Amino acid sequence: MNKRGFASDNFSGVLPEVMNALQEANQGHVMAYGGDPYTDSAINKFKHLLGNNIDVYFAFNGTGANVIGLSTLSQSYHSIICPSSAHIQVDECGAPDKFTGCKVIPIDTPDGKLSPKLILPQLHGFGFEHHSQPKIISITQCTELGTIYQPEEIKAICDLAHQHNMYVHMDGARLANAVVSLGVDVKEITANAGVDVLSFGGTKNGMMLGEAVIFFNPELSKEAKYIRKQSMQLCSKMRYIGAQFDAMLSNDLWLKTARHTNKMAKLLETEVAKIPQVKITQKVEANGIWAIIPKDKIENLQNEYFFWIWDENAGEVRWLCSFDTTEEDIHSFVELLQKELAN
Amino acid sequence: MNKRGFASDNFSGVLPEVMNALQEANQGHVMAYGGDPYTDSAINKFKHLLGNNIDVYFAFNGTGANVIGLSTLSQSYHSIICPSSAHIQVDECGAPDKFTGCKVIPIDTPDGKLSPKLILPQLHGFGFEHHSQPKIISITQCTELGTIYQPEEIKAICDLAHQHNMYVHMDGARLANAVVSLGVDVKEITANAGVDVLSFGGTKNGMMLGEAVIFFNPELSKEAKYIRKQSMQLCSKMRYIGAQFDAMLSNDLWLKTARHTNKMAKLLETEVAKIPQVKITQKVEANGIWAIIPKDKIENLQNEYFFWIWDENAGEVRWLCSFDTTEEDIHSFVELLQKELAN
Amino acid sequence: MNKRGFASDNFSGVLPEVMNALQEANQGHVMAYGGDPYTDSAINKFKHLLGNNIDVYFAFNGTGANVIGLSTLSQSYHSIICPSSAHIQVDECGAPDKFTGCKVIPIDTPDGKLSPKLILPQLHGFGFEHHSQPKIISITQCTELGTIYQPEEIKAICDLAHQHNMYVHMDGARLANAVVSLGVDVKEITANAGVDVLSFGGTKNGMMLGEAVIFFNPELSKEAKYIRKQSMQLCSKMRYIGAQFDAMLSNDLWLKTARHTNKMAKLLETEVAKIPQVKITQKVEANGIWAIIPKDKIENLQNEYFFWIWDENAGEVRWLCSFDTTEEDIHSFVELLQKELAN
Amino acid sequence: MNKRGFASDNFSGVLPEVMNALQEANQGHVMAYGGDPYTDSAINKFKHLLGNNIDVYFAFNGTGANVIGLSTLSQSYHSIICPSSAHIQVDECGAPDKFTGCKVIPIDTPDGKLSPKLILPQLHGFGFEHHSQPKIISITQCTELGTIYQPEEIKAICDLAHQHNMYVHMDGARLANAVVSLGVDVKEITANAGVDVLSFGGTKNGMMLGEAVIFFNPELSKEAKYIRKQSMQLCSKMRYIGAQFDAMLSNDLWLKTARHTNKMAKLLETEVAKIPQVKITQKVEANGIWAIIPKDKIENLQNEYFFWIWDENAGEVRWLCSFDTTEEDIHSFVELLQKELAN
Repeated sequence: MNKRGFASDNFSGVLPEVMNALQEANQGHVMAYGGDPYTDSAINKFKHLLGNNIDVYFAFNGTGANVIGLSTLSQSYHSIICPSSAHIQVDECGAPDKFTGCKVIPIDTPDGKLSPKLILPQLHGFGFEHHSQPKIISITQCTELGTIYQPEEIKAICDLAHQHNMYVHMDGARLANAVVSLGVDVKEITANAGVDVLSFGGTKNGMMLGEAVIFFNPELSKEAKYIRKQSMQLCSKMRYIGAQFDAMLSNDLWLKTARHTNKMAKLLETEVAKIPQVKITQKVEANGIWAIIPKDKIENLQNEYFFWIWDENAGEVRWLCSFDTTEEDIHSFVELLQKELAN
Repeated sequence: MNKRGFASDNFSGVLPEVMNALQEANQGHVMAYGGDPYTDSAINKFKHLLGNNIDVYFAFNGTGANVIGLSTLSQSYHSIICPSSAHIQVDECGAPDKFTGCKVIPIDTPDGKLSPKLILPQLHGFGFEHHSQPKIISITQCTELGTIYQPEEIKAICDLAHQHNMYVHMDGARLANAVVSLGVDVKEITANAGVDVLSFGGTKNGMMLGEAVIFFNPELSKEAKYIRKQSMQLCSKMRYIGAQFDAMLSNDLWLKTARHTNKMAKLLETEVAKIPQVKITQKVEANGIWAIIPKDKIENLQNEYFFWIWDENAGEVRWLCSFDTTEEDIHSFVELLQKELAN
Repeated sequence: MNKRGFASDNFSGVLPEVMNALQEANQGHVMAYGGDPYTDSAINKFKHLLGNNIDVYFAFNGTGANVIGLSTLSQSYHSIICPSSAHIQVDECGAPDKFTGCKVIPIDTPDGKLSPKLILPQLHGFGFEHHSQPKIISITQCTELGTIYQPEEIKAICDLAHQHNMYVHMDGARLANAVVSLGVDVKEITANAGVDVLSFGGTKNGMMLGEAVIFFNPELSKEAKYIRKQSMQLCSKMRYIGAQFDAMLSNDLWLKTARHTNKMAKLLETEVAKIPQVKITQKVEANGIWAIIPKDKIENLQNEYFFWIWDENAGEVRWLCSFDTTEEDIHSFVELLQKELAN
Repeated sequence: MNKRGFASDNFSGVLPEVMNALQEANQGHVMAYGGDPYTDSAINKFKHLLGNNIDVYFAFNGTGANVIGLSTLSQSYHSIICPSSAHIQVDECGAPDKFTGCKVIPIDTPDGKLSPKLILPQLHGFGFEHHSQPKIISITQCTELGTIYQPEEIKAICDLAHQHNMYVHMDGARLANAVVSLGVDVKEITANAGVDVLSFGGTKNGMMLGEAVIFFNPELSKEAKYIRKQSMQLCSKMRYIGAQFDAMLSNDLWLKTARHTNKMAKLLETEVAKIPQVKITQKVEANGIWAIIPKDKIENLQNEYFFWIWDENAGEVRWLCSFDTTEEDIHSFVELLQKELAN
């Protein structure tokens, strides 16, 4: 039997509805590379969700989706501004830097969130040929620290960007968790807030694999199909990504799933907050909890549950819930935690 | 009901054994990014097949696999020599050129196959700083024209490469079809012939997606994991690629599948060869037939069956069989062909 | 005393007028990076020569100039078509490939010259995401084989390019030699013929270093200054490139110099044509002679004169004249040649 | 007559000794691309200065030199750590990012100087495929803020780097100013301190153009010649860079020049320190002074003297001396300053 855990939402498997969709798509011949009815249907559902005037490209993984979006909106002499905790900064082995050729400028933040105030000092050197020209602000919703931008916070960043003839990229690997946490229509934190391109996550929310790059102004993405192909993100048997998204966007499955995941995280927060030796370090707004615990207890805990150390020096750990986290998982883990920390 | 056809082996779906494997892998939590038992098992099967001293990396698609192999063995001031019909030359939107930074040098061939004689004129300028240094010879087995290299032909190319301190990359998107056509052990046309890195195809042979990059000298691939990640080819829920390959390499499923596909191509060849207006243009050695037919008949045929035009001027078309091609598919199509060409 | 020779026009030094200009520019403080009066004056002379509606960028060397022009007009998913003898294909160590990210497609030619007929087979796959999109045709005037395009030949290539929404890049490292050979206004073979971007050579025509990138449609080069800087071609003490071009474009120095050089090549052709063992292999239209001579004599000749072997197997050599080639150089060399070949 | 100023050491021209050397090199034919006696002689002088076991490559400019050094020691999945004030971070329009493909990680510093303490937080993720692997620490001597590393500070950084299997790159665009300021042998702050590759500046110290890339371990630079060529930094008429460096390294011209320049900066510091409205913001250790002055006076001053604003918000300006700065320049400028600030 496999170990359970809170390591990452990609340690869990595939939602049953998604697996069913894959099987149902597995019949006969269809056009490769996206000319199939499953992909068509999924794209239509994205348009229903996000507006008709969008341009949608499926990609294999989050890094690929981010690179497609960033490359499409930039030239190599541009710079991309992001939090120093951004996935594009610390978890993609430099793929955005290499593929776009841009300078990626990380900004330190306390909670993974950019703001106009934090961004402004980088908005200089426009027109000065020695300086990489600021062109994209990249934010993550929800952030890599489990925090969430309010709609007006996103709008403020987008307004700032557009005033400077720049674009906003949103890494939405866990967008669903943000939407249900905020209780808003997804358009409020994307299209309506002024986001130019969005990586809409699928994998972490219960798909086998597959992300969607959504451009909110198709004028900007006229040549994105070449960029997707050149960045090795064009799936030949695309129907199997299309079918998954089609299932996710049916009956609000993507939101139901995230709602459960967030609820589990809240439960975990409530329970661990009762343990004095656990110090929660970030607001719990989505599906993750960051906490400092006694360093010498970590290894024992990891022997029984998957989870990652976030900051070795501080003794900070990360616990992520996923679609298949159960109340029992949480109670068992908290019990273990109490037992270990009591020693 | 979906149209049937001979367009490509990626118009077909997923083998039932592979779909079963995906479902069986869909339980509980496992390590992401390859630390799971399915991936382990598949890699062990690859070692059983190709030798223990190999280094295996799974990738999403063929372009990704080729780029990982080529990037790992090259620096940007090198050149990569390939047939002008190579997938890396005409079908990857320049991904190898961009990602490696190398000069890709295409060589015209009558049948998609390189030879020492064709390669030699490019092997000059060694040590001359003005000239991209020849470093990799890339061949495809079976070729993009359905032809096949004999083991000794591959060996001759590898020997030439190694004499010049160069490497040989094999694009094996349809390697299985070559193996069964030649009736040899797969090692005879890869490791034993001197191939340095191989893209071992999965998708076209009945998987949902997934290719394997195999390095035959692990000294060369010490840092390949970073290259895979940076080239956006690292799957988070890797178990679902691992499980597919595990199924393919069980009970020789990969070979049985290719054997059927090749047999269907032979049947199609036999049947269309009887039609005087059909002129077969390449040896039928694997799963594809290239043929010239009257141009004005093509559209009608395409209305009922998927297939691609190869050379519009010549009226040359390509018919590929896939794992799910049936004898009935062939007889129905040949019947239609006879009827159309008789008009 | 230094050996004389016919190796290359960059074995020779700097024209006295250019050296004087450098010294005259060497006083006081001026703005760096091009904000100086010497650069201004040179650019104005370029506008006088080539039309007011041009955009001029100085670069350090020919490879740099080519890369600036090509990068400005392309995206990485494009392809660049050139003769297989092009400097960008064989003599720039892959700089254009790496810096643009494009696929560079070489076409074999008998004489270094492209033509619509040779180009057309590559003009396909437009709109097909798998295929690097053809975007630039690069020609060299005069070619790397000493041959010259007639104005109407250039126009035909430009028309073909523009019909396909493509651009024409001209590598004019030896443009002056072509202009005087044809006896036309330089605009006839550049702006008026439809060329989109030109590398206007300085170094080989007697400058110390420095080339100019000329865009004939400033709409296309709005961001070229960033590309120049990022491609490491922005000179800080730009006045010293500006002053050289200013001298070259004064009193037609650039043409007078090329006229002399071409005349010397004609004299050399006339003289060596009298020697039966010398077989001239290309039309002598500019400053170079390609000839096959007995292989076993080459080394002795090279001991006394600099020149390069072009094709070792064929015994083909290249003799280039430069601005400081004298009649005496030629007569001495021909005398030696006669003596050696008589043995 | 040209305006004088303190804008940059590249607003000034060329040392008379250097100009003489250029003229003397201007005779006859020599091998191109570095096979000439001037380049030979200069390289020998570099070996005399820095040790026989070095590998020297001349480049056109500082950005080019930095890119050659960084590219030679890195792969695209590496990261390069530098101060956020580094030239490679803010003044090269992303050339290092694009050409190396690496992630460039800027670190904020008060004075332009890195230290082990500032670097250490970035030295993590080794072996973790998601993370750009830390490989190069890049420092500037003297810094972009006019400050200077002590030999033991450099050694501490190099030791840290080597403990982590990393390299140290030194941007020495103004190395001479640091050497004379410290009063040490140049080897003490380069080879002996453990620096792996050095950009040895020429232009800012009185050359027309030209920088030298020095590798202190030739094992690391075996293929650097291809990287120089591909990065468009190989000069064809190399003798004219060689001759300049040959002159600079004769009779300690490079040090005498820097000594004068630094002395002028000290004089300027002494004089402006007497003016109460001038607040010097960085230690004056080389040839530059950073100071805050009343913002509303800046424009008037700039009308008469070239200099740049460093930080518009703070009213901080930069005054750089160069080889041709005279005591009279300084006294006149200070007089103006006093007059303006008195108003």
